[in-house]
Amino acid sequence: MPKPLALHPDRLLPADPSVRTIARRLLAEVDGVPILSPHGHVDPSLLVDDERFPDPATLLITPDHYVTRLLHANGVPLPRLGLTATDGSMPTSSPREVWRSLCAHWRAFRGTPSRYWLEYELAELFGVALQPSAGTADEIYDHVSDRLAAAEYRPRALFKRFGIELLATTDDPCSPLAEHRRLAEDETFTGTVIPTFRPDVYLDPQGSQWRAHLRRLAATTDCDTENYAGFLAALRARREAFRARGATSTDHSPPDAGCEPLDDSTAARIHRAAVGGTATTAEACAYRRHMLFQMAAMSAEDGLVMQLHPGVYRSHHEPTARLFGPDTGHDIPVTVEFVRALRPILDRFGTHPGFRMVLFTLDESTFSRELAPLAGFYPAVYLGAPWWFLDTPAAISRFRYAVTDTVGFYRTAGFVDDTRAFCSIPARHDMSRRADASFLAELVASHRLTEDEAAATLRDLVSEIPRTAFRLPKPAGR
Amino acid sequence: MPKPLALHPDRLLPADPSVRTIARRLLAEVDGVPILSPHGHVDPSLLVDDERFPDPATLLITPDHYVTRLLHANGVPLPRLGLTATDGSMPTSSPREVWRSLCAHWRAFRGTPSRYWLEYELAELFGVALQPSAGTADEIYDHVSDRLAAAEYRPRALFKRFGIELLATTDDPCSPLAEHRRLAEDETFTGTVIPTFRPDVYLDPQGSQWRAHLRRLAATTDCDTENYAGFLAALRARREAFRARGATSTDHSPPDAGCEPLDDSTAARIHRAAVGGTATTAEACAYRRHMLFQMAAMSAEDGLVMQLHPGVYRSHHEPTARLFGPDTGHDIPVTVEFVRALRPILDRFGTHPGFRMVLFTLDESTFSRELAPLAGFYPAVYLGAPWWFLDTPAAISRFRYAVTDTVGFYRTAGFVDDTRAFCSIPARHDMSRRADASFLAELVASHRLTEDEAAATLRDLVSEIPRTAFRLPKPAGR
Amino acid sequence: MPKPLALHPDRLLPADPSVRTIARRLLAEVDGVPILSPHGHVDPSLLVDDERFPDPATLLITPDHYVTRLLHANGVPLPRLGLTATDGSMPTSSPREVWRSLCAHWRAFRGTPSRYWLEYELAELFGVALQPSAGTADEIYDHVSDRLAAAEYRPRALFKRFGIELLATTDDPCSPLAEHRRLAEDETFTGTVIPTFRPDVYLDPQGSQWRAHLRRLAATTDCDTENYAGFLAALRARREAFRARGATSTDHSPPDAGCEPLDDSTAARIHRAAVGGTATTAEACAYRRHMLFQMAAMSAEDGLVMQLHPGVYRSHHEPTARLFGPDTGHDIPVTVEFVRALRPILDRFGTHPGFRMVLFTLDESTFSRELAPLAGFYPAVYLGAPWWFLDTPAAISRFRYAVTDTVGFYRTAGFVDDTRAFCSIPARHDMSRRADASFLAELVASHRLTEDEAAATLRDLVSEIPRTAFRLPKPAGR
Repeated sequence: MPKPLALHPDRLLPADPSVRTIARRLLAEVDGVPILSPHGHVDPSLLVDDERFPDPATLLITPDHYVTRLLHANGVPLPRLGLTATDGSMPTSSPREVWRSLCAHWRAFRGTPSRYWLEYELAELFGVALQPSAGTADEIYDHVSDRLAAAEYRPRALFKRFGIELLATTDDPCSPLAEHRRLAEDETFTGTVIPTFRPDVYLDPQGSQWRAHLRRLAATTDCDTENYAGFLAALRARREAFRARGATSTDHSPPDAGCEPLDDSTAARIHRAAVGGTATTAEACAYRRHMLFQMAAMSAEDGLVMQLHPGVYRSHHEPTARLFGPDTGHDIPVTVEFVRALRPILDRFGTHPGFRMVLFTLDESTFSRELAPLAGFYPAVYLGAPWWFLDTPAAISRFRYAVTDTVGFYRTAGFVDDTRAFCSIPARHDMSRRADASFLAELVASHRLTEDEAAATLRDLVSEIPRTAFRLPKPAGR
Repeated sequence: MPKPLALHPDRLLPADPSVRTIARRLLAEVDGVPILSPHGHVDPSLLVDDERFPDPATLLITPDHYVTRLLHANGVPLPRLGLTATDGSMPTSSPREVWRSLCAHWRAFRGTPSRYWLEYELAELFGVALQPSAGTADEIYDHVSDRLAAAEYRPRALFKRFGIELLATTDDPCSPLAEHRRLAEDETFTGTVIPTFRPDVYLDPQGSQWRAHLRRLAATTDCDTENYAGFLAALRARREAFRARGATSTDHSPPDAGCEPLDDSTAARIHRAAVGGTATTAEACAYRRHMLFQMAAMSAEDGLVMQLHPGVYRSHHEPTARLFGPDTGHDIPVTVEFVRALRPILDRFGTHPGFRMVLFTLDESTFSRELAPLAGFYPAVYLGAPWWFLDTPAAISRFRYAVTDTVGFYRTAGFVDDTRAFCSIPARHDMSRRADASFLAELVASHRLTEDEAAATLRDLVSEIPRTAFRLPKPAGR
Repeated sequence: MPKPLALHPDRLLPADPSVRTIARRLLAEVDGVPILSPHGHVDPSLLVDDERFPDPATLLITPDHYVTRLLHANGVPLPRLGLTATDGSMPTSSPREVWRSLCAHWRAFRGTPSRYWLEYELAELFGVALQPSAGTADEIYDHVSDRLAAAEYRPRALFKRFGIELLATTDDPCSPLAEHRRLAEDETFTGTVIPTFRPDVYLDPQGSQWRAHLRRLAATTDCDTENYAGFLAALRARREAFRARGATSTDHSPPDAGCEPLDDSTAARIHRAAVGGTATTAEACAYRRHMLFQMAAMSAEDGLVMQLHPGVYRSHHEPTARLFGPDTGHDIPVTVEFVRALRPILDRFGTHPGFRMVLFTLDESTFSRELAPLAGFYPAVYLGAPWWFLDTPAAISRFRYAVTDTVGFYRTAGFVDDTRAFCSIPARHDMSRRADASFLAELVASHRLTEDEAAATLRDLVSEIPRTAFRLPKPAGR
């Protein structure tokens, strides 16, 4: 017999009745407050084209590596989740079959945030009233397919329904940002969609396509990127182009947080060697770190907030990467060291009024040991939200308990959904607000904050705090 | 005045009345469900011989390094706990005196799982109704001694009373497994006792007895273990012998998780050098890591599940090791790195249907950072339970909160008691079930799972999940 | 409209009503029990001179780097917090202006222990009934100023009011300890104030002033400190002088926990080289570690308890250090390794009856992985309280949950306030007692301890346990 699906109004709130009551009141304070999404991976052409989503699996499963990775771990090969092997060696399942795989393995998601998001999307967004299972798969698939055919399920309608005030995308420095321009110029679209400058592949000579990227950058900017000075000029030009299209931040995910600068002549020499394919591994690494410092220096000049989230081993399973490409569920976090590594940037720009840096990590041991102490001294440093593997009720709670002692709330940066899954945006912000309301309610219940203060803090966490940390435009400023 | 000792039916359950009620109902679902113990250190001859236990101290204190270590830290020298110095330099106390030492230091165990286990054993198993103290030591000693004299306190009777369905022991690869054979052939013994292949000392040329172990292996298998190919053949032969006696897994505790394979000729060369005593430290280390890869390769062939728990500094206090031998309470955990270290095995066998690996750690910082992300992608990887220092209500809770977000429940491996203390088996499984019921009850109370789902999950955690992860035989399959 | 300020009697206690009731009863057990403060940074001349405190800002803000660092992070330059730039480049604000800065940024402290301490001090000590804010700043400043003028707010009166039985200061080995002598000889002062031997700057040849410190040491002791043997003799002499003035411990904060001893001739050779300015970095580092071992050896002889808290990157922001000196809020914790590093000391002195060591850390990942296992075996090792960044309700809870499983309560060392802010002493001990009462109440509520045992444990945590760990004199022993 199929089980009903329904969202409980008190979901994720603390169990104790008196604390829950406080959390519920706090949550009401941010009910309907618009979503600021300063860091994510939604494709802006989605909103430009505004075409209807093809089917439930293509919308909710195939592009979401949170979902596909756990199904893969539970024995479902990636082609049965809609991924296409580049060598055509394995047939890709139909969307309906993909959907059935998810429903048949529904128990694998018990206790995970992916389940929380999917339930939210199914129940709240699509009005599904049944829990997924092998027996209900087709009925739910048909139900959601029907809805997707309706006009109110097109991307722009959903953008409005979700209450998104601002959405930042993540973009290649060579992107012409045509979609951002079209959205800004389109008077029928009232949201704000801004790009984010993500230069990783240009800054690391060890990347296999580095020289090709430099050539693209040269073509885009008319700068001689084979020359170090020309390369810097090209990056500056693209930063400026991003700023002109509303960008307020850059995004960096190097393997480590090193940023020791080189002197100009050494940098120029290694740049030449790397272009010529003769740079050693050590030189390429030193150059990558040097370029992170350069990015900080440019941020101090142009005011783009620097987002940094180092320490991920990308594409851990080489056979999968070869067949299905990057971002297929096997990027694995590693330990990160921030204190010694970031000294060059912080020594030079840590108190610079133009410089602002948001530090993210997947290494929770750094929350209380390194990140909070840094953000508790340097005016330039903000603590990024727990994200990716840590974007969960339990991890958000651990984050708040670990860092609030040292930095309070106003040195944190607010929630980032970091998602490719457009429909999960409201689910994730809902989760974050519930988690923060729960934490604040605990502080009220233990008489550490008044309820007034807690309410003000929660309001700030969803609006003023991300606005400040990411230098987002004022609501009226569009 | 002596204090009463009694086990509260709600022990370890959450304090909130509504959550506790849910936890209590969940717990009832696994009441009486047989114990699967896929990883432990009980001596199988205990069950073959079925002799009565000599006295309370020899049963509950002397062999339990959890108990002796904390008493030692609190100032009780090891001979006063029944340990014998190899040089005869210190007289060993009588069992009654050993028992008195425990009781006199009872407060040292407040809040520890050792106390939880001992209380369970005293109250539940032996019917002791008084808290241990200097004043009650003799009375309890006499009471337990009386019980031990009765037939129903012999090992086989207890095995049955504990409801153990399957018990895995840990065995030297050269063991003839005679006890396992005798138990299997004994129709009056209805439990299942299987061996586990633990080859550590054969794989590390840096071990002081490595060459002696190789000679024993040669004698056992008729293979020329001084020759690399012969050595591999010998290991394969013993794995096969273990499988024939019901083994489903191997067990590995190297100093680190490295497993970079060497090419055959290099491996053969280092093997020869090590046999000749001329291998360098670096070569011996490379060879050890190579052999871990070989064990994975053999597991992919023969299907023995590979248990891996690296990162323990063994016998930290050399004077104690010299006098009292290994496993005397000063093996201390160190940091472990899994992501880079395990790449060779996972790249090659991470999606291999024959390969299965259970990863354990004492470095909790790896739970959310490394282990859950690995088990959340690779079908071959299961997350081992928090064990040893982490085999506690609080650590189990931290484990569940840290990993469930990323892997749910079905990539974890179920509880392992890992004990040498036979009578603590039911106490430990009782604790584990209560801890998991508490965690699940929290999920129900915060409306993340229905109570039906939580109940099904708890049932799976004690049966299907360890059966799958460790490839244990079906209940009827004996 | 200004908000009222009042301390709730149940602050910091668990929210669940039944657990809170238990915690409240436990707390009552230590109501009025005198404060033992075995580790801190109060200047003893404060109590010798007994002069009134100049103003609220100089008392509560400027010297408290917990407070100034977070205000600095929130954009307030240090001179506006009363700190004076050594080059006179920035005017220092008046105390009233400093006070206004704190009040205007009051929300920055929401959820932090600094706020908890400040609220306690304002409400409990000074009878302030308004929450700080831009609007109430002057009124509160005037109110506190008035109180500070009264005799009962002088240091000695407060010392008595706070119920401090014993206060340990932290002192330079060359200090003549004149203040300690005067306090001991002053019959009108009934407290106990003892020095602590803190030799860091003498033990590290890499310190910029090392040779100057050696010269001061020579002048103080009449030993030839340019000679290794003379240097050791000088240190022994000063330790003896400290012991004669009541010292019971030494305090060490090296960059890492290394303590590998050198042979005497190597140590003598490096000492000479360092005095001559020709020691290499590696030699200086080896010498520093060797000297930590020597300190342990002297502790085993003279019985001074060795406090060790390695792993802090000092003065991270060089421009701030240059202008405002050390201890200005940018000492940042780094990872620490204890297991391998401490082997030399523990192998030699870990079971030595004369030796006692209290291990502190800011790297929480070591609590369950390294520190508890070490303290759970070695009789010489005690676990220091979570301190500095971890001296908070949440971190104390994490500490107890992480270590109690392995070591119970009686291998921990009790609370240390480690403060320069005299008036925060009772606030901090109040917080610690509430946190421990809460933890113990949870154990009682989950039926792991009886309430009697929990009460006895809490009493021991504030008296017997620190007295034992730090070898403090008996109350009557003064």
